Amino acid sequence: MLNGVNNAGGRPRVHHAFLDWGTNDCRIWLLDQEGSIAERIESATGIQAVPKGGFENVLTEAVSDWRSTHGPLSILAAGMIGSRNGWVEMPYVPTPSGLADIARATRRVALQSGDVITFFPGLTDPNARPFPDVMRGEETQLAGLGLERDLVAVIPGGHAKWARIAGGRIESFQTFVTGETISCLVAHSFLARPAVRPAQTNIGAFERGLAIALNPDSSAGGLLARLFSLRTGWLAAGLMADEIADCLTGIITGWEFVEARDAGWFVAGDSVVIVGDGDRTDLYRRAAVASGLAPTIASAELGPRGALSILGAAGLS
Amino acid sequence: MLNGVNNAGGRPRVHHAFLDWGTNDCRIWLLDQEGSIAERIESATGIQAVPKGGFENVLTEAVSDWRSTHGPLSILAAGMIGSRNGWVEMPYVPTPSGLADIARATRRVALQSGDVITFFPGLTDPNARPFPDVMRGEETQLAGLGLERDLVAVIPGGHAKWARIAGGRIESFQTFVTGETISCLVAHSFLARPAVRPAQTNIGAFERGLAIALNPDSSAGGLLARLFSLRTGWLAAGLMADEIADCLTGIITGWEFVEARDAGWFVAGDSVVIVGDGDRTDLYRRAAVASGLAPTIASAELGPRGALSILGAAGLS
Repeated sequence: MLNGVNNAGGRPRVHHAFLDWGTNDCRIWLLDQEGSIAERIESATGIQAVPKGGFENVLTEAVSDWRSTHGPLSILAAGMIGSRNGWVEMPYVPTPSGLADIARATRRVALQSGDVITFFPGLTDPNARPFPDVMRGEETQLAGLGLERDLVAVIPGGHAKWARIAGGRIESFQTFVTGETISCLVAHSFLARPAVRPAQTNIGAFERGLAIALNPDSSAGGLLARLFSLRTGWLAAGLMADEIADCLTGIITGWEFVEARDAGWFVAGDSVVIVGDGDRTDLYRRAAVASGLAPTIASAELGPRGALSILGAAGLS
Repeated sequence: MLNGVNNAGGRPRVHHAFLDWGTNDCRIWLLDQEGSIAERIESATGIQAVPKGGFENVLTEAVSDWRSTHGPLSILAAGMIGSRNGWVEMPYVPTPSGLADIARATRRVALQSGDVITFFPGLTDPNARPFPDVMRGEETQLAGLGLERDLVAVIPGGHAKWARIAGGRIESFQTFVTGETISCLVAHSFLARPAVRPAQTNIGAFERGLAIALNPDSSAGGLLARLFSLRTGWLAAGLMADEIADCLTGIITGWEFVEARDAGWFVAGDSVVIVGDGDRTDLYRRAAVASGLAPTIASAELGPRGALSILGAAGLS
């Protein structure tokens, strides 16, 4: 049990902050006593902008106002800050793993400021082929979703994750390089060169892309062949310049679902939980429906709740 | 029959030049009487660098020395110069198509210089799914390979082509967006960010990528999932920074062969002709062998011979 500011006559209270320090940005959320997000700090000071050994100073400065107001903080740090390029390199806990397994691998460090930071481990799926798969940060989102219900969760992203929760544990997971392939091809390919980016997602164009990906005709080939539909669809079917980027997004997003189905993640009629917010989540919901799944949406901001659940499982709250 | 310079007492002779004017560069080859390449002009003045209406002047100037020496030229123009963004928009001839079918769709234009330019049509495969497929330029390479033998040809490239030649005709073809996906991801993805480009292709790393693509374990997913092996292979199997780019090339090239096999282009034990020169052709040969194919290599410089064959089929030499 961490001791923070003592309320006069009350039980000791400590304020938690959840730290999501990625490669290119830094988000810190001050949590209220229920674990909900009370205040937010966001900056463009990503891990790669901080010299080795400089993380403590940057963080201490970033949360100084909160410390002045609330006393020493308990900072919960998941994700890339615990990677080889981050502050400390945390281990990967092998699946299947429950809250207590993850909790046992956390590491607490007392900072000069009086704050205490708890680093969370990543997860590895040793049974994944061709190599053990890895995640960092998504495991706290999955813990926040709750491990009581058996389900399959999809976390969209540059490196999207599909994960199976069963028997109170994260049982297995797999990564798909979807967002990154989309953004590279939209920005840099000749195929997308005629593209004009509309201000808003063109849903019709996205769904044309989904239909291209999900077309069951095996003669249409896989992703590499279907991507050429951006050219042939332009010539043969009137695909417009302001539809190309969203159609490309639809082809690649749809193809993630084709791969996930073929790899055994679902059969038509299954349920799936999509973890995310905003436009991309809606596109994944559409891809799930088009693939015969029954999707529900969970907020991407599950990390704080998950981190507190993990600490609770270890009696560390 | 074009009349060029008259040799004293001999039959009329005309010198042919083969023009490959692409989006980003321009190559012109002077041919000898056997159709072999006698001289070369290469420049970075691609189609997109020439204003509409400016092609004739640029070409006339480029070949002026040859014209002075040999008299008016017969210029054979295949590929992107005959596209919507080029000099004239040539039609796509539907497959199956033989030399005479292609020849009927050529178009001759007399230039102010006295040269005559013959534009070649592209091909379309109306039975391709989800849209009719298209090629421009590769059809002259295939004609140069010869349509007498039944075979499957692979033409590597940004948009690689697989084509089936049968019964003296180009019967069907399919495009795979292989080279472009490789170059976008190598240059711009986070996955490849740690990559150090070696001076020469690291064949071992390429073959590790091939093995990742060709691994038959369906739980390993498709291309989007296997691409994450660049991260997990780095963590789990010691993939080095100077191996990442070639491993990525191996994964995507290998995946083209997986797609082509699944789309019905070959079964193990079949032969295939790879049309190309240089490093990339060697990588395709390795991918073919690893996929159970028996590959032979044909030079990429088949366009002139093919163009002359097409003209010959129309009695237009």
